[in-house]
Amino acid sequence: MSELRQDPVTKHWVVIASERARRPEDYPKDPEKEQCPEFSESCPFCPGNEAMTPPEEFAYRQRGTQPNTKGWWVRVVPNKFAALVPYGHLGRIRENEFFRRMDGVGKHEVVIESPIHNAAIGNMELKQIEEILLIYRDRFNDLGQDTRFEFVTIFKNHGKLAGTSLIHPHSQIIATPIVPLHIRHRHEEAMRYYDDNGECVFCRMIEEEMDAGKRVILETRDFLAFEPFASSVPFETWIIPAKHAATYGSISVDDTKKLAAVLSKIMKRIHTGLGNPDYNYMIHTAPFKDADENWYHWFIQILPRLTTIAGFELGSRVFINTTPPEAAAEFLRQGV
Amino acid sequence: MSELRQDPVTKHWVVIASERARRPEDYPKDPEKEQCPEFSESCPFCPGNEAMTPPEEFAYRQRGTQPNTKGWWVRVVPNKFAALVPYGHLGRIRENEFFRRMDGVGKHEVVIESPIHNAAIGNMELKQIEEILLIYRDRFNDLGQDTRFEFVTIFKNHGKLAGTSLIHPHSQIIATPIVPLHIRHRHEEAMRYYDDNGECVFCRMIEEEMDAGKRVILETRDFLAFEPFASSVPFETWIIPAKHAATYGSISVDDTKKLAAVLSKIMKRIHTGLGNPDYNYMIHTAPFKDADENWYHWFIQILPRLTTIAGFELGSRVFINTTPPEAAAEFLRQGV
Repeated sequence: MSELRQDPVTKHWVVIASERARRPEDYPKDPEKEQCPEFSESCPFCPGNEAMTPPEEFAYRQRGTQPNTKGWWVRVVPNKFAALVPYGHLGRIRENEFFRRMDGVGKHEVVIESPIHNAAIGNMELKQIEEILLIYRDRFNDLGQDTRFEFVTIFKNHGKLAGTSLIHPHSQIIATPIVPLHIRHRHEEAMRYYDDNGECVFCRMIEEEMDAGKRVILETRDFLAFEPFASSVPFETWIIPAKHAATYGSISVDDTKKLAAVLSKIMKRIHTGLGNPDYNYMIHTAPFKDADENWYHWFIQILPRLTTIAGFELGSRVFINTTPPEAAAEFLRQGV
Repeated sequence: MSELRQDPVTKHWVVIASERARRPEDYPKDPEKEQCPEFSESCPFCPGNEAMTPPEEFAYRQRGTQPNTKGWWVRVVPNKFAALVPYGHLGRIRENEFFRRMDGVGKHEVVIESPIHNAAIGNMELKQIEEILLIYRDRFNDLGQDTRFEFVTIFKNHGKLAGTSLIHPHSQIIATPIVPLHIRHRHEEAMRYYDDNGECVFCRMIEEEMDAGKRVILETRDFLAFEPFASSVPFETWIIPAKHAATYGSISVDDTKKLAAVLSKIMKRIHTGLGNPDYNYMIHTAPFKDADENWYHWFIQILPRLTTIAGFELGSRVFINTTPPEAAAEFLRQGV
């Protein structure tokens, strides 16, 4: 029968729905996505089209090349259709006694991950992935210097079902002047666990997952990749540093190398095993002001979009997951 | 510039992203969906195919016809691929000291809304909608008799992007042995408002929305249809009873008639105005034990699925909405 499982960190419930269970092979593949060229003349992220984006914030580029021209291999630009912008009034505006709003103050950046139009994390060289991860860190820390910003979300949308029609590999960074309430709730639960037990709930989870073993995909000295116990969607995968660290901003250059190796293997396996599925990933991290706390622990959450978020999920936020994490881990372990 | 708006009930933030604003006409239409027959031989919900579903729980049917045969006009059956089932152990199972789970105890039903394969709420007769709303109520109250169930979610998935590939109009009812944490958080905020102000936050919101006017679509003596101030997706629409009531289970037969008239107009307008978009709706209601509370207020939330839930939304649960609710209301008001 199905199971209700409780996320040990957030206390959210998920349904692991064995009655609807699907084998990994049963998820539909999208062969069209594979037939995509290395360069697209109309793509704003392809080399030579630098003028189609707002001026770059930062890039790794060949010595002697000018900003906003060819010669880069990772490039950061403001999002042309930015959800939030770095100006405006920061306080709450009372529309009246009842309604509150703020100017849309923040920063919304795009990380163009490669000059190659059809590249993917799963088939890039390790050096390239390392530098993407380094840029995430450096942009994160740079945004943290701006005292208007309380929180930064680093995320990637891959494929239409994941929210992007741009094929060229890219991720996004959004700095917000507030800590999202959902994040605050997660953190309050982690804090409560720390108060009760005197240890970080994520450090404990790492131990528990390593002990259980059945949800582990890959374990190195420094990182653990696994399917969480209360996995919300088929093949939800976490990559978490073994050593406690609340904020992604503190990752060392050496650790980005090690993380790149793990991320590469996992994404390659998801790509080949599940037929290049649409997916999102996000880096969960502490707000700037909690960077040194004992109760939070950063991690990468990968969410393949093989199923649809429907009315029950939107209404109750209880996810119905049709592939038990143990089965997903067993499948992903093959060939990693 | 964009705005951050705070939901006055839940305190969640949304981004109203004017930089990406789209006019109602700009959302893509799906003409294929219109070309669907009145009857489909292979559809498990079409008359004559009653044996393709589990035996019915309840039906409105012509006098003299037998259960699980033709002659019904609304039919309730257990979901063949039920996420939860009405047996199993109810307590928390400790996988070990750290992980908690429960048997998937609950009930998962399907309401087949019409014998007509290609019917839609927006084009049904009022009498039919009334009876769907009545069945929701009666199933809700019946499930409430089972002391194992704490909460019921009534919802509808219409179209692939909303999570169903079955065209035949249907909704679903899921009874859970827990109150989902997300719901509890909503309710805690509503309770806090009540403690602070001595009034229901939804009753106050109704007054505020009627005063403001600009987000109202339709106002009758008994129901208000409007786009909420902190609307999370384009054309998010609420229908709420003007008179305080915490639970949908308390709706009178007379009020289902009045609600049917409002729901019909709204769904017809969404259907024609936005080109039969995929959508979810859900009835938000109090847990059974809070049925008489002063601080909660049931309502129907309609979420057209015109945009995709992407990494930022999944990571932060802050939604980026590209159509301000004021513009959406102005559009939907035309022709209602």
